[in-house]
Amino acid sequence: MARIVQKFGGTSVADIERIRAVAVRVKAEVDAGNEVAVVVSAMAGVTNQLVGYVEEVATLYDAREYDSVVATGEQVTSGLLALVLQQMGVEARSWLGWQIPIHTDGAHGKARISRIDADEMDQRLKKGHVAVVPGFQGLGPDNRITTLGRGGSDTSAVALAAALGADRCDIYTDVDGVYTTDPRIVPAARKLDKITYEEMLEMASVGAKVLQTRAVEMAMKYGQRLQVLSSFSDEPGTLVVDEDEIVEQELVSGIAYSRDEAKITLVKVRDKPGVAAAIFGPLADASINVDMIVQNVSDDGRATDLTFTVTMNDLDRAVATIESFRDDLGYEDLVHDSKVVKISVIGVGMRSHAGVAQQMFQTLAEKGINIQVISTSEIKVSVLVEEEYTELAVRALHTAYGLDAE
Amino acid sequence: MARIVQKFGGTSVADIERIRAVAVRVKAEVDAGNEVAVVVSAMAGVTNQLVGYVEEVATLYDAREYDSVVATGEQVTSGLLALVLQQMGVEARSWLGWQIPIHTDGAHGKARISRIDADEMDQRLKKGHVAVVPGFQGLGPDNRITTLGRGGSDTSAVALAAALGADRCDIYTDVDGVYTTDPRIVPAARKLDKITYEEMLEMASVGAKVLQTRAVEMAMKYGQRLQVLSSFSDEPGTLVVDEDEIVEQELVSGIAYSRDEAKITLVKVRDKPGVAAAIFGPLADASINVDMIVQNVSDDGRATDLTFTVTMNDLDRAVATIESFRDDLGYEDLVHDSKVVKISVIGVGMRSHAGVAQQMFQTLAEKGINIQVISTSEIKVSVLVEEEYTELAVRALHTAYGLDAE
Repeated sequence: MARIVQKFGGTSVADIERIRAVAVRVKAEVDAGNEVAVVVSAMAGVTNQLVGYVEEVATLYDAREYDSVVATGEQVTSGLLALVLQQMGVEARSWLGWQIPIHTDGAHGKARISRIDADEMDQRLKKGHVAVVPGFQGLGPDNRITTLGRGGSDTSAVALAAALGADRCDIYTDVDGVYTTDPRIVPAARKLDKITYEEMLEMASVGAKVLQTRAVEMAMKYGQRLQVLSSFSDEPGTLVVDEDEIVEQELVSGIAYSRDEAKITLVKVRDKPGVAAAIFGPLADASINVDMIVQNVSDDGRATDLTFTVTMNDLDRAVATIESFRDDLGYEDLVHDSKVVKISVIGVGMRSHAGVAQQMFQTLAEKGINIQVISTSEIKVSVLVEEEYTELAVRALHTAYGLDAE
Repeated sequence: MARIVQKFGGTSVADIERIRAVAVRVKAEVDAGNEVAVVVSAMAGVTNQLVGYVEEVATLYDAREYDSVVATGEQVTSGLLALVLQQMGVEARSWLGWQIPIHTDGAHGKARISRIDADEMDQRLKKGHVAVVPGFQGLGPDNRITTLGRGGSDTSAVALAAALGADRCDIYTDVDGVYTTDPRIVPAARKLDKITYEEMLEMASVGAKVLQTRAVEMAMKYGQRLQVLSSFSDEPGTLVVDEDEIVEQELVSGIAYSRDEAKITLVKVRDKPGVAAAIFGPLADASINVDMIVQNVSDDGRATDLTFTVTMNDLDRAVATIESFRDDLGYEDLVHDSKVVKISVIGVGMRSHAGVAQQMFQTLAEKGINIQVISTSEIKVSVLVEEEYTELAVRALHTAYGLDAE
């Protein structure tokens, strides 16, 4: 017997028929003797419709009202799933965020879970009752509904699993696991049986949209075992676990890429102390995340070129922000380029093995791909290259690191 | 300065455009210096869609889940109206049933309001903030959402008005007030400026569907002044008030009719003590409301005919219930007829004036209309006649009691 939290996303509960299919999966776990809590998203399209209403009535809207309106989508699904389970003879009830409660901070629209009082639910689960919980929602300190931001249902599921001491948190989605890279680009990509939290985080942060980053961070913090699997097949998925659980660690686990990048270069910036702070301070104030940064060595000790990347979304605002400080910064020119892609090689194995980065640079060089910017972390090497080389680079690296399926 | 609760039904908040029109009405009261709380229904069609989902997934459904699903309709409207008001520069927020809270009993799907803790809202209203409250919903003793039954938003509004000590509760609907009778039948029908709670109750109970009966009962209990008016015009509506407020009371205030009646006659029932209890006991047990009852004088002291009415809806069940007790009751035959209409003359003035019933019988006799059953209350006389005489009877009575507009 195990205690399991299952999470089903919007496509898995798209309509009544699919909600019935979800109930069959829930019942299967119950019949196997397991204790089950289920976290559900809104039916496909519902959240967009509700957000559309809000945006239609108000341009700069009160996030508290937004939350109250938008949280209804998950509320409906949770009630319907509880009803379907009851029809199948499974004892089930819905628990809204404020009923459990799932306490969050007061950041409406992008709240963070602070505490879950799961005692009553814990007692019910022990009696074999199924708990159905709307994802994405919680209760703020102001006694009003909060939402966790788009995709927040993954976080709801992980937080609930941790609070309930669940043996596993199964995230059902429309892909059947985490792959060594995007199978649409590399048909030889393999589904990973296991991946570490750290690797999953790096994968998520560079565009592999299988799991919400915050959900993985939370799972890592609480050591909550996760499984990513498909709600449309019966294959086992990918387990996201602590490094200790992976006996034979590959050097590289996956190749990820993100086209959502734009590069900004300030030409001939004055090369003096404090110039980096003068540039990145205003960007931070404008809530613009800067990712990769490279500063060239100055020729004459007086001026240098500075290059950095932001997301496509933030490009226009970043350029405007920098230009408004032009006089202070004293750069000669600002050029930007959004026809770039960030390609990342990820693996916890590279902590203890040298040469991973070198192999990446060499592989790309052999294909004649010029590297524009490089950044590294403990378990990741990322490079920025011209966007048109995306597929070529990903395929070459996938082969070079021995990831191709036989 | 006055404190006003405004209630807008489903057609008044049918879409975003109409919600904007509602906000204009709310703002007008605020601009006039009034304190305003607003109760809203779900957008037109939403409740039906949600009920449809529930009925699609479960035949005999858990009313607690039904409530949680269906209450979302009003939740969405309340958030949207608060947002529109904010856009117009009006300080406003939504208050869900569980946030206020509006305490109810535990009868999910048809709960009754037990208590409203309106202290915090009271403070906000004094500061000029507008409270937007989803109608139809409350919080049960089980800490779960309850709903008050279809049309319950009227009751929400009256209960909130009473709790807030409001000067007036304005019920906006798609008719512009209470008429002396159905204007579709009698073009000369007049809109009443004022009507008493008792008369409104009798009107509602015999088919004038302007206000929910429970809402009127509650208004009467708390002496809460009500106004029924149209959200599509600027005309004043009809005030529903205590009898004391109406200086010059008409003898008769209105003529109502209900086609939703069916007549059952038990032929030659044994005429002995306890037979009425033996008949109506099983009907009460089956939750079938019996309205009019008439028992003929027995010819020979041994058998008599007994006639009573039920709603059309209950006819089949009533007949089946009676027939299952046939051996005990020992009647000779059971005949039923649903081609009947109940016509009622209503007016508090008849308490102090004799002759109202007599005038009704005489008017109908002059038109050759046979009366099948008669029942009276302190302020109402009702008769059952053949359905095809509906319009003729209503028109004749409207004229006879001097109700026709000049």
